[in-house]
Amino acid sequence: MINILLNGCNGKMGQTITQILKEYPHIKIAAGIDTNAVKFKNDYKVYNEIMDVEETADLVLDFSHPNSINKIIEYCVNKGIALIVATTGLSELHYEALSKASTKIPIFQSANMSYGVNVTVELCKNAAKILGKDFDIEIIEKHHSEKKDAPSGTALMIAQEINSTLHNSLEFIYDRHQKGTRKPNEIGIYSLRGGTIPGEHTIVFAGKDEIIEVKHTAFSRKIFAEGSIKAIEFIVGKKPGYYNMQDLLKEMIISNE
Amino acid sequence: MINILLNGCNGKMGQTITQILKEYPHIKIAAGIDTNAVKFKNDYKVYNEIMDVEETADLVLDFSHPNSINKIIEYCVNKGIALIVATTGLSELHYEALSKASTKIPIFQSANMSYGVNVTVELCKNAAKILGKDFDIEIIEKHHSEKKDAPSGTALMIAQEINSTLHNSLEFIYDRHQKGTRKPNEIGIYSLRGGTIPGEHTIVFAGKDEIIEVKHTAFSRKIFAEGSIKAIEFIVGKKPGYYNMQDLLKEMIISNE
Amino acid sequence: MINILLNGCNGKMGQTITQILKEYPHIKIAAGIDTNAVKFKNDYKVYNEIMDVEETADLVLDFSHPNSINKIIEYCVNKGIALIVATTGLSELHYEALSKASTKIPIFQSANMSYGVNVTVELCKNAAKILGKDFDIEIIEKHHSEKKDAPSGTALMIAQEINSTLHNSLEFIYDRHQKGTRKPNEIGIYSLRGGTIPGEHTIVFAGKDEIIEVKHTAFSRKIFAEGSIKAIEFIVGKKPGYYNMQDLLKEMIISNE
Amino acid sequence: MINILLNGCNGKMGQTITQILKEYPHIKIAAGIDTNAVKFKNDYKVYNEIMDVEETADLVLDFSHPNSINKIIEYCVNKGIALIVATTGLSELHYEALSKASTKIPIFQSANMSYGVNVTVELCKNAAKILGKDFDIEIIEKHHSEKKDAPSGTALMIAQEINSTLHNSLEFIYDRHQKGTRKPNEIGIYSLRGGTIPGEHTIVFAGKDEIIEVKHTAFSRKIFAEGSIKAIEFIVGKKPGYYNMQDLLKEMIISNE
Repeated sequence: MINILLNGCNGKMGQTITQILKEYPHIKIAAGIDTNAVKFKNDYKVYNEIMDVEETADLVLDFSHPNSINKIIEYCVNKGIALIVATTGLSELHYEALSKASTKIPIFQSANMSYGVNVTVELCKNAAKILGKDFDIEIIEKHHSEKKDAPSGTALMIAQEINSTLHNSLEFIYDRHQKGTRKPNEIGIYSLRGGTIPGEHTIVFAGKDEIIEVKHTAFSRKIFAEGSIKAIEFIVGKKPGYYNMQDLLKEMIISNE
Repeated sequence: MINILLNGCNGKMGQTITQILKEYPHIKIAAGIDTNAVKFKNDYKVYNEIMDVEETADLVLDFSHPNSINKIIEYCVNKGIALIVATTGLSELHYEALSKASTKIPIFQSANMSYGVNVTVELCKNAAKILGKDFDIEIIEKHHSEKKDAPSGTALMIAQEINSTLHNSLEFIYDRHQKGTRKPNEIGIYSLRGGTIPGEHTIVFAGKDEIIEVKHTAFSRKIFAEGSIKAIEFIVGKKPGYYNMQDLLKEMIISNE
Repeated sequence: MINILLNGCNGKMGQTITQILKEYPHIKIAAGIDTNAVKFKNDYKVYNEIMDVEETADLVLDFSHPNSINKIIEYCVNKGIALIVATTGLSELHYEALSKASTKIPIFQSANMSYGVNVTVELCKNAAKILGKDFDIEIIEKHHSEKKDAPSGTALMIAQEINSTLHNSLEFIYDRHQKGTRKPNEIGIYSLRGGTIPGEHTIVFAGKDEIIEVKHTAFSRKIFAEGSIKAIEFIVGKKPGYYNMQDLLKEMIISNE
Repeated sequence: MINILLNGCNGKMGQTITQILKEYPHIKIAAGIDTNAVKFKNDYKVYNEIMDVEETADLVLDFSHPNSINKIIEYCVNKGIALIVATTGLSELHYEALSKASTKIPIFQSANMSYGVNVTVELCKNAAKILGKDFDIEIIEKHHSEKKDAPSGTALMIAQEINSTLHNSLEFIYDRHQKGTRKPNEIGIYSLRGGTIPGEHTIVFAGKDEIIEVKHTAFSRKIFAEGSIKAIEFIVGKKPGYYNMQDLLKEMIISNE
């Protein structure tokens, strides 16, 4: 049995994880932490402050806001338990604090907890390594009409990972309207918006008379909850250190061999 | 047996048609016309000027340049034979001349001779009529890296046909980079470029928890030759008039019923 | 304000409609009917038997089981209100009873209430009418790994509608393994199964060097609820008659013009 | 300048390579070998028998028939030059002969010379290693209506490579028609046939609420010629040994780093 504290338990992701974990009997939410403590009827006690939590736990799963990150780090180091940070929008100072704490406790951090998205990134890096010189690379992402940012953070992450594989030689292009012929070092990133599309990313490697495409389709935000569960199972029992999805994927490969 | 004169016989499309017609024994190229008369070894005689052609024919198929359109019209009216104009870049004056001549001879004119592209346009117009109020419409087109214009003429044609179905209420958008939330009356048109992609157009109708997509994929420019052959078979025996691909599609439906 | 009685309110679809209707203030569930009356906390009263319902309503929406159809018909005819039947698995006797009742009340019946699926069917019938002679038609459907039937009812419906458009000339093929070259009159139907895919249907029209595809993607069963709401808005105020999704689509076209 | 002898120069692939190599000035066809020596007007001399070839060359590229493989091996070993075998349908005896010869000369052998197909295989093996336990794997391939075998050799190759990655635990399924629920260890392989589709392979990894797809699209058989050119550039100057596309891909990664 793994006991976790869920920081941000009353947010959208917090509630999604609460629901999903009902299907995983070996993982229990010992308590939740949220500044809005009365919003949902959870099966666990919800605290305003992590320092007040009385239940013991094996790790903290943080799906909240960068504001609370320092308190969470302090709590985990004091208790000597692991920390999973799925919060986005961390600053350099936050990364430094996490890095420092990772000498004492195991820390898992990822801006995108979807397992599939991270596998997609790995496949694209592999493809770019082999095809980068001969194939043109372009990315299309599709999301619902209410999405405020374009391109999506995930599309940018994929483009940046591909670019770092190719020695940062690529120029990001968001629009080909009346721009003339494509230059070889460009990577086009196009953002389609419509309806309630949960999220789709297609990476196109176009060569001479052949195309390779890698595509990730999400049907719901449950994928971030499922990825978090893999992170929970991964981090328990680990030595202190700063872990991410790439470490988790490597372990998956080894366990499958 | 249908005898045709092929204007622009030594261009890319002229040669593609010359090849394809070898598979259609009931259609014969009686003679070709091209300002470059010596370029290819054709199985038919090639003239510099259509006025010099000695062979008789049932129609002229024009895959050349707007420059020669007036001479072609004059020739066809004099001979009382049909004319198929597949040339792009016609001016208002050309359209007027064609319209005037169509009272005397049957004229078929289309800026895109691909049968499939025109069927795609019809399907999208039907879909837009039904879905236009409730679904967001977006278009992605993919072409080879050497293509100079973006979006493709075909993508623009599809967008315009959809727009005219929706009372010209749509605003064309070519780029969502940092533009914020989608407005309901927008139609996004995205141009992916890479490798040697012959041509792909996908029209996305995105609604609440469901998407309908209509996609056209071209593998080669042969599709314009195949469409021309359908136009040849269509125009022979027709009364004088100004015909286009929509007329041809309607006849296809009737003949299939 | 439209008041409805929801038969089968405690089933999966009944509960989905209950949720979705909260976003439509002009449609109210006056009461529900379900043999399991205590399962959910609904905002409306739930009866075991439709005959016991005390609330007045403009129509009955039936998402239950063919068993209860005769009682529902009787109730609607007595009250002189409309009936929408979304139940699947109806027998010939049920269809006869519905047909007879439709001389007295407006009846809307469809085995698939998804608006998008029905539009997809219309597009495919149009495409088949034009392309049927020259293009090969094949269907791929994708669903979750737990789905028991293959092909999906929707894939079969699409294939049958295409087939009836082509004078029932097609032979249904479910497997090309070691079968040799394709015959022109075949229509292949392939059922991919995996993960939690909500439902995807792609109809492929493959010709000479070009392909047209029509694809429907579902993200959730909400699409059947959304389609039901369109049916509710359609049927209110109609004369007695037997209506289906095609009538609804035609009205959509007219109202969009 | 690399000089090659092209065995099977008058076959479809031989002629495609003859055309493509005109764009690569540093590779020259010194002579061709074909039992049908008079079919095409080649820019190089064509022999009936490789033993009669007078021109010197750096390697032999074999795109013919297993029948001639032993003579080719003997020739290359005698001359001390490299051999690229792109012929399909080799027997165990042929493989043994190649293996034995590879102690004396560099030999490159692949049943599929497409660069992109081999990259696709690598990506799928990587994906299967990570996702194999949690995701369902299925393959769809699309080819023209005249194709005799189903599934395609490439689809089978991909399935076998994925299967060997997963300890040969998979059961190959070609048809889900009326088969009931999917078993976790199945891999479905579906063969769509229609029109003139040059070749498309999509490998679907379907998990909980997310899908990863890897797709290869071919536009023509030129891709086998382009892959052969990469093999030519790879094999020149190599030590004796038995090389394949995986070795080539590894070298591509290193040269891109």
